Amino acid sequence: MKMQHVLESQQFTVPLLMEFFQRARSMEKIVARGGTMDYHDKIMATLFYRPSTRTRFSFEAAMYRLGGKVFSTEQANMFSSEVEGEQLEDTIRIISSFCDVIVLRSLESNGARRAAAVSTVPVMNAGDGAGGQHPTQALLDLYTIYRERRSLDGLSIAFIGELDQGRTARSLAYLLSKFDRVKIYFVSPPELQMKQDILDHLEANEVWYSLETGFENILGEVDVVYQTRIHPERVSDHSQLRRYMIDAGVLPKMKPDAMILHPLPRTVELDKTVDGDPRALYFRQAQNGLFVRMALLTMVLEDE
Amino acid sequence: MKMQHVLESQQFTVPLLMEFFQRARSMEKIVARGGTMDYHDKIMATLFYRPSTRTRFSFEAAMYRLGGKVFSTEQANMFSSEVEGEQLEDTIRIISSFCDVIVLRSLESNGARRAAAVSTVPVMNAGDGAGGQHPTQALLDLYTIYRERRSLDGLSIAFIGELDQGRTARSLAYLLSKFDRVKIYFVSPPELQMKQDILDHLEANEVWYSLETGFENILGEVDVVYQTRIHPERVSDHSQLRRYMIDAGVLPKMKPDAMILHPLPRTVELDKTVDGDPRALYFRQAQNGLFVRMALLTMVLEDE
Amino acid sequence: MKMQHVLESQQFTVPLLMEFFQRARSMEKIVARGGTMDYHDKIMATLFYRPSTRTRFSFEAAMYRLGGKVFSTEQANMFSSEVEGEQLEDTIRIISSFCDVIVLRSLESNGARRAAAVSTVPVMNAGDGAGGQHPTQALLDLYTIYRERRSLDGLSIAFIGELDQGRTARSLAYLLSKFDRVKIYFVSPPELQMKQDILDHLEANEVWYSLETGFENILGEVDVVYQTRIHPERVSDHSQLRRYMIDAGVLPKMKPDAMILHPLPRTVELDKTVDGDPRALYFRQAQNGLFVRMALLTMVLEDE
Repeated sequence: MKMQHVLESQQFTVPLLMEFFQRARSMEKIVARGGTMDYHDKIMATLFYRPSTRTRFSFEAAMYRLGGKVFSTEQANMFSSEVEGEQLEDTIRIISSFCDVIVLRSLESNGARRAAAVSTVPVMNAGDGAGGQHPTQALLDLYTIYRERRSLDGLSIAFIGELDQGRTARSLAYLLSKFDRVKIYFVSPPELQMKQDILDHLEANEVWYSLETGFENILGEVDVVYQTRIHPERVSDHSQLRRYMIDAGVLPKMKPDAMILHPLPRTVELDKTVDGDPRALYFRQAQNGLFVRMALLTMVLEDE
Repeated sequence: MKMQHVLESQQFTVPLLMEFFQRARSMEKIVARGGTMDYHDKIMATLFYRPSTRTRFSFEAAMYRLGGKVFSTEQANMFSSEVEGEQLEDTIRIISSFCDVIVLRSLESNGARRAAAVSTVPVMNAGDGAGGQHPTQALLDLYTIYRERRSLDGLSIAFIGELDQGRTARSLAYLLSKFDRVKIYFVSPPELQMKQDILDHLEANEVWYSLETGFENILGEVDVVYQTRIHPERVSDHSQLRRYMIDAGVLPKMKPDAMILHPLPRTVELDKTVDGDPRALYFRQAQNGLFVRMALLTMVLEDE
Repeated sequence: MKMQHVLESQQFTVPLLMEFFQRARSMEKIVARGGTMDYHDKIMATLFYRPSTRTRFSFEAAMYRLGGKVFSTEQANMFSSEVEGEQLEDTIRIISSFCDVIVLRSLESNGARRAAAVSTVPVMNAGDGAGGQHPTQALLDLYTIYRERRSLDGLSIAFIGELDQGRTARSLAYLLSKFDRVKIYFVSPPELQMKQDILDHLEANEVWYSLETGFENILGEVDVVYQTRIHPERVSDHSQLRRYMIDAGVLPKMKPDAMILHPLPRTVELDKTVDGDPRALYFRQAQNGLFVRMALLTMVLEDE
C-alpha cells in the first residue's frame, strides 16, 4: 500500500498496520545483514522547528540505511534571516521543490497537516507542537510489542506516569483500541490521569480499561509495563511519587515474559538497576525506531 | 566554460550567462526524470556565518542532486571553541583542504573575495554581509525570466519596494544592463529609492529607467513585476505603504503574460490571494534556485 | 590491526603507531588521486556537546572520503527536548543502534571512556572536556612530524606557550616518549610551565627534557617548533609575552629543515609573516587531520 503522508496515528487501519509491521521486520533483516536499499537518488529534508536530536537521528539513519541523502536543520525558525515568523506554508512549498520527502517537527499542533496541504512531496510528522501528534513514536511502540508477541490481540498493558499530558500513552492507547480483547490499566496520580477523550474512545470501541493509583495489584497480570515520566512539581503529595517508580524491587512481581517499555529519555521513574533484566526492552524499543522509520519512508516513497 | 569561483554578479558576461542558462535548463530536465550526475566523489562544505536555511538547503539539494556529499555549519563563528573571531583566511585555508568546493555566507561585505584569494578549491558566494553580493540569487532571478521569455532583450520590468537596501533588485538591475532595449521602473517611496550608483551604471550602459512612487500607471506595460519587502518603520507616511502592495485587486491591470516575482520570504507586500494566478511565479523562482545552483556547481567543479 | 575504540593517546603502542602512519599515508594517496574507499554502507554519528566546526568537519570529510555517510549534531545537549541532562550512557546506547561508529566530543573529562563502555559500535574521542584527552589531534601532530622526517627517533622539539593547560603539547610529549633519543624543550613563562605529571613520565621513560623561559638559545637546535597560544591574562608580566611569539624575525635562527607546527587557530603568537616560509607546516598539519581520521576510521570499522 502506498501512503501519501504520515500525519497522525488515526490514519492507520489494521491492514495498513499489518503491512507496516511486515515492512519494519524486513528492514530489520536488511540492516542486520549490512544491506541497503535502492533509494540512492532520494533526498530527505529534515525540518525541525525545535531540536530533538534523537528523533532527528533516527529519521536520518533510516534514510541513510535506505541509501538516500539528507539535508537538515534544527533551527527551522531561522529559515530566512530576513523575516521572523515566515508562514509555514511558504516554507514547505519551497522546500518540497528541493527534495523527495519532508520530515517535519513543527511548533503548532496541526503543523504537519498544514504542511501536507501544500507540499508537493510526502510529509512525515516527527512531532507536532504541544498536545499534537507524534505518530512515528506511537508506531514504534506498537511495533515493539507486536514484534515480541506476534499479535496485539488479547494484550494486557499498564500505562504508568503523567498520563494527561502523555502524548505517547495517548497515541498508543488509541492504536491499541483497533485490536481485540485488549485490557488497559492507566496508573497515575489522580490529578494526572488519562483524559476523558481517550477513555470515551476506548468505551466506544469496547476496550476494557481501569484507572489505578498504583501498580501493586496489577503488575503480575500485565504483558506490558509502559512507564513514562512524572514531573514532580505537578504532584501535590510528593510522598506518592515512589508508587510510580520501577526499580529492581518490583521485577519479581512481573510476569516472566512481560516487557518494560519507556519512550526515553528517563529520569528517576525507571531505575538503572532494571537495565540488565531481559524484560527491559526500552533500548530495543528505541532501536526499533530505525526500522519503523525505514518502513514508513519506503511506504511514502515507493512508486504508485 | 570552466569558472574558478562564483563571487559576484559582475563576473558574468553575456556568453557566460547564455551557457549558464543552458546548463540550468538541462539540470532541470535531469531532475525531472529523477536522474543524477556523476559527482559522487565530490564534497561540498557549506560554511554559513549566519543561518539562512533556505539558501543553504538549496545549495545542499543541488549538490545531492549532482550525486555529491555535503558537510555543513550554520554557526561558522564557532569554528573553534578556543579562539573568538578566528581569521576567515585561516578557516578557509583549512576547510579547502577537506573538500572540493566551499559555499560561504560571510558576515563581511567582501568575505567571498577574501576567501577565494586563499582557497585551494572553488568558492561560491552564498551572500556576503550587509550591502554585499548574493550572486546566485540574482542569477536565479535572471534565469527565471529567461526561462519564461526565452530572451532578456526588450524586457520591461518594475522593481517595487525598499530598493535602496534591496540586494536582489540591485544585482538583477545590474545583470539586466547587459541586455538590449531593457526598460526598468523603480517603484519605491522616495526615501527608499534605488541608489545613485546603480542609476549611474544604467545610464553608462544606456539602459532606460524611470523612478516612480506608485505602480498604477505602469502595471499594464511591464513584463515582470519584481516585488520586494518594505520595512514599515523606514517609511515616514504609513498611509503610503498600501501603494506598494500586490494583491488580487491589481491582477486585472497586469499584462496577461506578465510574471510576478519575489525573492521570498514575503510579509504583507504580496498577498496570498495572488498565489493561484498563473502569473505568480515566485515559488517557481525559488525552485529554480535548485537548478541554478546545480548548474553553477558543475561549472566550477568540472575538469578543465 | 583492528582497534575497538579511539579513546586516548596511551592506547597507541609503537607498532600500532607504525601501522597507523602507513594507513594515513595511503589515505593521503587515495585522496590525491580523487579516489574513494568501499565504506558506502557505513554511517558515522557525530555527537558534539560543544561546537567545534573544524574538528567536526575533519571527521565528516574523512568519512565522506571513505565513501560513508554522516549524521551530526553540535548541540547534543538538546538530545531530547524533554529532559535536561540526559545520561550520556542512555544517549550512547540509543545512538549506537543507529550507526556504525560514534564520534564524540563530550563535556566531561572521561566522557569517551564512559561512552565506550556501553556502546555497541566503536567510539572515537573527538575531545573530552577540560583537561581531558583529544587523541586524534595528538596523532595528527605526530603523523605530521613522522611524514616529514620518516622517523621520530632522535627528534629534537620545542614546545612553546601555555603548556600547563596545553592539551596538545601534553599529549604529543607523551606520545614522543615512546621513541628513542627524543629531546624536548618546554618553553613557557614559569607560571605556565608543563605540569609535573608529564615531566615525571618523561623521566621514567628516560626522555631528555629542559624547561626554558625563552627560545633564543635553542631555536638553532630543534627539528620542530611546536607553537601554542598564551592567554595574556594568565601572564603577570605582559612585557614577557613577546618572548614567546614567532614571526619572520626569528626564521633565520631556525634550522633550514625545521618544521613550525601549531594546532590552530592562532592569535598573535604566530605571525602571518611566517606563512610563506617552507618550514611553516601548520596548514599541512591541519590537512593531515583528514588523512589521520580516515586511517583511524578504517582501523575501527574494518572487519576483524
